[in-house]
Amino acid sequence: MHRVKVRVVEDALDANNTIARANRDDFDRAGVAVVNLMSAPGAGKTTLLERVLGSLEGLRAGVLEGDIEGSLDADRLASLHVPVVQLNTGSGFGGECHLDANMVRSALGEVPLGDLDVLIIENVGNLVCPAEFRVGENARIMVSSVTEGEDKPLKYPLMFRACELVVINKIDLLPHLDFDLDRFLHHVDAVNPGVPRILTSARTGEGIDDLRAWLEEVSARVVAAA
Amino acid sequence: MHRVKVRVVEDALDANNTIARANRDDFDRAGVAVVNLMSAPGAGKTTLLERVLGSLEGLRAGVLEGDIEGSLDADRLASLHVPVVQLNTGSGFGGECHLDANMVRSALGEVPLGDLDVLIIENVGNLVCPAEFRVGENARIMVSSVTEGEDKPLKYPLMFRACELVVINKIDLLPHLDFDLDRFLHHVDAVNPGVPRILTSARTGEGIDDLRAWLEEVSARVVAAA
Repeated sequence: MHRVKVRVVEDALDANNTIARANRDDFDRAGVAVVNLMSAPGAGKTTLLERVLGSLEGLRAGVLEGDIEGSLDADRLASLHVPVVQLNTGSGFGGECHLDANMVRSALGEVPLGDLDVLIIENVGNLVCPAEFRVGENARIMVSSVTEGEDKPLKYPLMFRACELVVINKIDLLPHLDFDLDRFLHHVDAVNPGVPRILTSARTGEGIDDLRAWLEEVSARVVAAA
Repeated sequence: MHRVKVRVVEDALDANNTIARANRDDFDRAGVAVVNLMSAPGAGKTTLLERVLGSLEGLRAGVLEGDIEGSLDADRLASLHVPVVQLNTGSGFGGECHLDANMVRSALGEVPLGDLDVLIIENVGNLVCPAEFRVGENARIMVSSVTEGEDKPLKYPLMFRACELVVINKIDLLPHLDFDLDRFLHHVDAVNPGVPRILTSARTGEGIDDLRAWLEEVSARVVAAA
């Protein structure tokens, strides 16, 4: 008699994680480093990408652009002559507030993985649910604008905890804000001790070199692991 | 023979709407005007409330404060000596990204409705899901910070469509931003033609009188309907 094997699905996100692993296998096979870019609405993800992708040398980049509806950001990035695929989450109600692994998978047929070194997945602007869904990425960047206030790491801890890099954007506005950068960084360390951080201004270009170097390092790690 | 009556539940949000109506009945009975305050993270909802509630005369206000975790905002508002009830949505994963009618209902026992003229429900910072869930409110305010960019009404249309007032905050920063206010307002009108709008700076106090007048008007309408 064979013993019956019982397998309990332990995690409500199990289906998502299964598909995320399948995505990751595809990315690994193609030797593409994948970065999940997350932030609140209007933190400057797309403008940062315009800056960074416009100055990448030696790395072939592509973008998977997540939005509830429309293709405003994808249209902006297409002018940089990188492959951009728009993924709209909006059907029914107000649209999905995040990307999940299956949505990303549904778009992979359109992404020319064989021609890329790095794929940036720009998530829907939201500080909650995107942090809950892996999509097969190698690393996650969380962009926080200084205009959003010092308390955000404490109010949205999972987002700050679930990332490998915190980009603090719009620092050109610091002189005009009541924003205590040390206090903010203290809060970041409270939820994700020692997580790397880069200060940027997508407007002036400050910090863009550091962000580019970080992307190159992620890409080099993926190539080395292949 | 009796004819069998078939009732089809038409709307996946039906349960939420049922509870929202029950909340509304309670609010109406108490003669309390209820406003659902929504925005992206860091748009300035709490600072606006500090300004407005600190200067309300003749209206007794209370706040139901929605956050994933912590009570940072509630603590700030409590110093204004208005009744503040904290409602945390965070359990499991990263927490619920919005308030729904049942969450609000679960907190009503703590809210002294009999002592209030206006109850402000400060929603979780998110431009997507809060717009999908009525909680029994009389009106909804959507706060958009000028630092978030001109394209937000087009990217998060349901949020801008589901409100009775758009507050455009942080206008003190306009001289330091590449933000075309006319273009933003044009986008607002594209998704919600003619919706009332108030320009504010929670920092300088500009526009706070107008916001207070708007709240008084909503309250007067509720009293008149009672």
